[in-house]
Amino acid sequence: MLFCNRQINSRSRYNEVVIRRCHLPEGHDGACNEYPFLRHLKSVAPNVAQKIIRDSTMTTGAAWKSDDAGPNRILRWVMKLPDEELSKFELNMANLKPGVISKLREKAADYDSCIEVATKLTWLAYQMNNSPISPDDITEYLEEIHGKFIISSTVCEICKLPMNFADFRLAKRGKAEIETCHKNPRIHNAENIGFAHRECNIAQGAKTLDEFYAWIEGILARR
Amino acid sequence: MLFCNRQINSRSRYNEVVIRRCHLPEGHDGACNEYPFLRHLKSVAPNVAQKIIRDSTMTTGAAWKSDDAGPNRILRWVMKLPDEELSKFELNMANLKPGVISKLREKAADYDSCIEVATKLTWLAYQMNNSPISPDDITEYLEEIHGKFIISSTVCEICKLPMNFADFRLAKRGKAEIETCHKNPRIHNAENIGFAHRECNIAQGAKTLDEFYAWIEGILARR
Repeated sequence: MLFCNRQINSRSRYNEVVIRRCHLPEGHDGACNEYPFLRHLKSVAPNVAQKIIRDSTMTTGAAWKSDDAGPNRILRWVMKLPDEELSKFELNMANLKPGVISKLREKAADYDSCIEVATKLTWLAYQMNNSPISPDDITEYLEEIHGKFIISSTVCEICKLPMNFADFRLAKRGKAEIETCHKNPRIHNAENIGFAHRECNIAQGAKTLDEFYAWIEGILARR
Repeated sequence: MLFCNRQINSRSRYNEVVIRRCHLPEGHDGACNEYPFLRHLKSVAPNVAQKIIRDSTMTTGAAWKSDDAGPNRILRWVMKLPDEELSKFELNMANLKPGVISKLREKAADYDSCIEVATKLTWLAYQMNNSPISPDDITEYLEEIHGKFIISSTVCEICKLPMNFADFRLAKRGKAEIETCHKNPRIHNAENIGFAHRECNIAQGAKTLDEFYAWIEGILARR
């Protein structure tokens, strides 16, 4: 799909270094929109729409924010900037622990990849059991990028059991029962991401999905 | 083994309701001692000795302490007391969330079980690769309770790979690489506990070990 790609002004402090753009189709009518594919979810399931934006565009950090733990959430593409640029935004990488720096840096992703991840997650969400029905224009938009909808076909990337849209609402200790997962935890793009049950994502940990499967095979063989 | 069982005065605020006792053999010489089997580890690996005492006797709670999250560490046998008794110790169970209450209550264990867990963990630690060598009197003491030492025989309860005593020192984000685990998370006794790698323990989560194995079998079958 060819996007409009006109610049959208955001209130982000990083506005000068990274431009946000319109992802309506080229030559669209009406106002520009960064996430037009989320218009419907924003209205019927705003927490899910917000989760998709957050997981697509933000690094995940510690639940708290400190020099020790690093910033808790930061735009993934900002993590592509060199230390000197980041210091202009009051983010002094030299003050962070090496482990925190490498965790943040490995979550860096360019803006286009983040948007593509957001479209993929939206596409997957609409194919869960009990998902709201996507309006035709959004279905068409998402199908052009990621392929035909197959109702109820979204499975947990890890355990391969069907996922239920209603589980976005379930929460244990403040954590959503559905999480965004990465087949390879160090790559943030549409091919590599999907949804997973929280317990599956926790079990996978820092391993790639292939490493996880090999690991549990070994456990069962030795049991 | 018949223990001395004389009362030991502790500084614990729960002293009046639960008595701590001496676990030297009946008729021993010298001063009484609640954890005589940890004498050697306290000297050569004090962090391991402290971990064994903590994991054997304390509930694990949130890393923080609040009315919302509950007390972060409390003696397991204190959790056997009724709400009225607990309120005398400034612990108002009625103020805690139901989920926190049930988590705390399911970690309750009687004092003798906790001591037996401590002897089992000590027995297992001495049978890890690279463990310090146990003095004869402690070997004899532990073997009488849990059976003959087999050097380097201690495996992770979950993945069944050999455990290395040196891994007690490794830590990721402040967490020890070796954790105490429960085959059934709701039962705290010598038969049900052991050591596990942190990543294995996290993967098992709230499941019993049998449930965990069945779960990963299912994942591999569907993959």
